[in-house]
Amino acid sequence: MNTNNYCVIMAGGIGSRFWPMSKTDYPKQFLDILGTGRTLLQQTFDRYLPICPKENILIVTNESYRGLVKQQLPDIDDSQILCETARRNTAPCIAFAMYKIAAINPNASMIVAPSDHLILNENNFNACVNVALNLTKESDTLVTLGIKPSRPDTGYGYIQFEDDAAFADSTVKKVKTFTEKPNLDLAQEFLRSGDFYWNSGMFIWSVKSIQKAFEMYSSDIDGLFKQGADKFNTPEEKAFVDSIFPMCPNISIDYGIMEKADNVAVVLGDFGWSDLGTWGSLYTHINHDAHHNAVVGKNVMLYDSANCIVNVPNEKLVVLQGLDDYIVVDAHNTLLVCRKEDEQKIKQFVNDIKVSKGEKFV
Amino acid sequence: MNTNNYCVIMAGGIGSRFWPMSKTDYPKQFLDILGTGRTLLQQTFDRYLPICPKENILIVTNESYRGLVKQQLPDIDDSQILCETARRNTAPCIAFAMYKIAAINPNASMIVAPSDHLILNENNFNACVNVALNLTKESDTLVTLGIKPSRPDTGYGYIQFEDDAAFADSTVKKVKTFTEKPNLDLAQEFLRSGDFYWNSGMFIWSVKSIQKAFEMYSSDIDGLFKQGADKFNTPEEKAFVDSIFPMCPNISIDYGIMEKADNVAVVLGDFGWSDLGTWGSLYTHINHDAHHNAVVGKNVMLYDSANCIVNVPNEKLVVLQGLDDYIVVDAHNTLLVCRKEDEQKIKQFVNDIKVSKGEKFV
Repeated sequence: MNTNNYCVIMAGGIGSRFWPMSKTDYPKQFLDILGTGRTLLQQTFDRYLPICPKENILIVTNESYRGLVKQQLPDIDDSQILCETARRNTAPCIAFAMYKIAAINPNASMIVAPSDHLILNENNFNACVNVALNLTKESDTLVTLGIKPSRPDTGYGYIQFEDDAAFADSTVKKVKTFTEKPNLDLAQEFLRSGDFYWNSGMFIWSVKSIQKAFEMYSSDIDGLFKQGADKFNTPEEKAFVDSIFPMCPNISIDYGIMEKADNVAVVLGDFGWSDLGTWGSLYTHINHDAHHNAVVGKNVMLYDSANCIVNVPNEKLVVLQGLDDYIVVDAHNTLLVCRKEDEQKIKQFVNDIKVSKGEKFV
Repeated sequence: MNTNNYCVIMAGGIGSRFWPMSKTDYPKQFLDILGTGRTLLQQTFDRYLPICPKENILIVTNESYRGLVKQQLPDIDDSQILCETARRNTAPCIAFAMYKIAAINPNASMIVAPSDHLILNENNFNACVNVALNLTKESDTLVTLGIKPSRPDTGYGYIQFEDDAAFADSTVKKVKTFTEKPNLDLAQEFLRSGDFYWNSGMFIWSVKSIQKAFEMYSSDIDGLFKQGADKFNTPEEKAFVDSIFPMCPNISIDYGIMEKADNVAVVLGDFGWSDLGTWGSLYTHINHDAHHNAVVGKNVMLYDSANCIVNVPNEKLVVLQGLDDYIVVDAHNTLLVCRKEDEQKIKQFVNDIKVSKGEKFV
């Protein structure tokens, strides 16, 4: 295994779409949302074990989730958990990890990955990552993983690529543009054109390349970190990062770097990926019974029910009768029953609860 | 208060109709099913405090519920809790209490009452009980409380009475027949005729009268208890009752005595009574919101929902969306969602669970 390979897992997100399974103090990445026995963070960690030495896998998270990360990944060293003291989106998070890795190994290559996505075909995934890693070792290229779109999804960003042979490997393409989430017409157009892939939010680059890119395109963030470059991996690291982190602008890596840089390539991937962004997307990835119910929970009994998503603790006995096309979730002493087609209302429920019951419930 | 007045509360029943709120080890009488802050047993006990001295209220229950009774009625003495070691329906239960009271006070009058019924108008109820108590002191009469029927309910037994002036009090009538649960046509006929009242299962009689009736009509039960008549209220009582109780036939007081005796009267009552036998009957006794939802639980939020019965713990946050005419119950680590119109299926669910998950869940 190449000891120059590092992985940075971003595990600081909150998000209310899977409420009440996910809560502010227990967000999605820390949940076994598919009922597999491993949480999404654990699955993500496991996924990189064949690619990086275990000690080269870093977790960037919010200070408030440090305990959860340690609990779910007991094998890693405390020094592998990078804690943010403020929520500043992905660019400052990546700069933090980049400076830390650069101080250990300036010849490192970095994979940056969200902690809460699903990847079903790990062989294909590993092949794509290896193509990307090789590219970052041979050239100054920022690589993103694109996903072959299977439907005109309006919930994803898209990457448009140049359809030429700029790279030796035919699965690697030069990126033309990143696009925001399109409307349905545009998404259909993207799908028809054949030169748009979904933006997975996973990146691969050498530390040298991404550092150069930060200098050029996000010099405000880079400047803050650079003044303490010698403090990383020393006892002074924490105090330094805690002092500058809140000063970082709140900006994504896509907007801060990727959309501006001209040395961006995409590896065209197709490995059963989902960002598990909605109950509906989850539904497609859980086994269904004969009546198209997708059930997580070992003691669920369904009568006259179809097309439901049920997610309840294994030890809870649940009897559902006469439900068609509902979401039923029991978690954290909270029960949600909601029509599947009205899933977008969950955000409103969570806001109402914040107002009427207090922050601790969401 | 007349120290000859005794009350026997029958609290040994099991019953799965309110599952999962009620369970074999936690049946309905021990639940605060209406969300009032007092369980049905506690409400029943409270109801008799103006009628009997507290120490004259006896609770007959199954041995396995002794702890629950003590917990819910901490003010009573252990000697007031009569425990059955086998389930033998109401006749043996009443014989037990009768012999115990007779050994204390042969001039006693007894009220016998189920522990899991609702009575809304306690003034009217008390008046009826007093009419009945006076009657039992003046004459050798077995009195039952009848309830003026408000609908042709097929879930209740009916009492037909002679419409003459055999008794001085116009609310007291001689009983002609007890009938089993009728079909709808018959129930409608009963209602039209005007001389049928619901059988509430509450009885009032003197110890002398009921003892004579047992001798005449249920001599098998009476014979078993009579051989140990001198053992009641002594250290030998428990061993004696435990030894004979399982030998008693399984028979109700209605079938064993009331349907056979010719000295039975009914007090015509109208005091907001319900046996709370179904979720539907419960629904009519809980306050409704503007969308006709009847909710027990302090943290329940309803969206696009109507005509539901919701019964969940106060500390549980529950968000329900898009439900019309459903029962939603969360209790004892069990969740039930069921169409109100399919409530009779709950019995089947409970049987299925017994088979597939084991007795401990029901």
